[in-house]
Amino acid sequence: MVKIIKIQQRITSSNDTEAEKLRMELRDRGIFALNLMSSPGSGKSTFLKATAKQLKNRARMGVLEADIDSAVDAEAMAKEGITTLQLHTDGMCHVDADMMRQGLEEMDLEDVEILFLENVGNLICPAEFDTGCHKNVMILSVPEGDDKPLKYPLMFSTSDAVIISKLDSLPYFDFSLERAEERIMRLNPKCRIFPLSAKTGEGMSGWIEWLMEERDRCFHD
Amino acid sequence: MVKIIKIQQRITSSNDTEAEKLRMELRDRGIFALNLMSSPGSGKSTFLKATAKQLKNRARMGVLEADIDSAVDAEAMAKEGITTLQLHTDGMCHVDADMMRQGLEEMDLEDVEILFLENVGNLICPAEFDTGCHKNVMILSVPEGDDKPLKYPLMFSTSDAVIISKLDSLPYFDFSLERAEERIMRLNPKCRIFPLSAKTGEGMSGWIEWLMEERDRCFHD
Repeated sequence: MVKIIKIQQRITSSNDTEAEKLRMELRDRGIFALNLMSSPGSGKSTFLKATAKQLKNRARMGVLEADIDSAVDAEAMAKEGITTLQLHTDGMCHVDADMMRQGLEEMDLEDVEILFLENVGNLICPAEFDTGCHKNVMILSVPEGDDKPLKYPLMFSTSDAVIISKLDSLPYFDFSLERAEERIMRLNPKCRIFPLSAKTGEGMSGWIEWLMEERDRCFHD
Repeated sequence: MVKIIKIQQRITSSNDTEAEKLRMELRDRGIFALNLMSSPGSGKSTFLKATAKQLKNRARMGVLEADIDSAVDAEAMAKEGITTLQLHTDGMCHVDADMMRQGLEEMDLEDVEILFLENVGNLICPAEFDTGCHKNVMILSVPEGDDKPLKYPLMFSTSDAVIISKLDSLPYFDFSLERAEERIMRLNPKCRIFPLSAKTGEGMSGWIEWLMEERDRCFHD
């Protein structure tokens, strides 16, 4: 059984101030935090499990699972031995910095060096709220189509890295990697793009390399 | 070039009252309206194009395309000769009844008998707002996974019909039709479920039959 806690949107002075404070606190505790966003069903959990496997013996990973309902994802993480906590957002479509704090207060973070917030599956609202994480990462899965940057520009603009997931399904869908990358770069030229398959492992190493570099940068800049 | 209009969330007395009024007006004008909701990239547009093809010589179809940005979907509809209008939601994550009205006011509805609102790609927020349509239909695509009813229960609970799309991709994903149907029925026993592939045409006829029956019921009850 995984631990489930219910978080609520509370009125705070300013989410941006709250987020900045949280980001510094996390850094002081030696935790590098990433906000992982995507549509429902893009493969966030499978991607996180594959990431945890690659990080084994390199860094200890934890996952804060935010969902409206169910504990499916946290149970999947716990099964792999990943430190996890399930947050229920009380119907909310996103996580803000104070909601993230409510989760952190209940989680055993002693062993965690890299923390992922698996945000609610939603390509719109989460992009509007700073969660206090150090980096924003989003997933676009091949079956969703290469036109998504045109339709959901804010999400692609606020992400430091875009994972193009389910790369193994490329032969079965009308998805052009070139078109997707071009559309993402037009919105966000500084963004790093990692096409990969968590299932086959293809492309995972580039993502892990970036993750470790950014973690070092977080603590040494 | 398709027509694009920008709609905004305005303060109205009550969305439910507004929606009820709009629903009756549409009925009086002989228009059967359906609110189509889903995650980004579940195949709403491909599904609507396939539906239009099947309805040819049976009923005239129109599509109100709601998106945060781009006119990709409306252009795709116009190319198929479908009456369409592109709405830009000014960043909003859903469409309410007043926003729907703003779109209808700008659309040439003379020829339209069956009208689809292609709602913003989002499995959370649109479920909370009555758009004034007669029926709610949602799409769950096979690549998204059969656990979605557990994570996004409200969307499945408020839908009169659930389309399980991209059925042709079933061999490539870990998706159980039985599990998905059981989870949907547990939330919403009255819901009709149509597994289909807009690409191959498999399963389309059951959906079209339901659509025509519900249209008749709308005008004769």
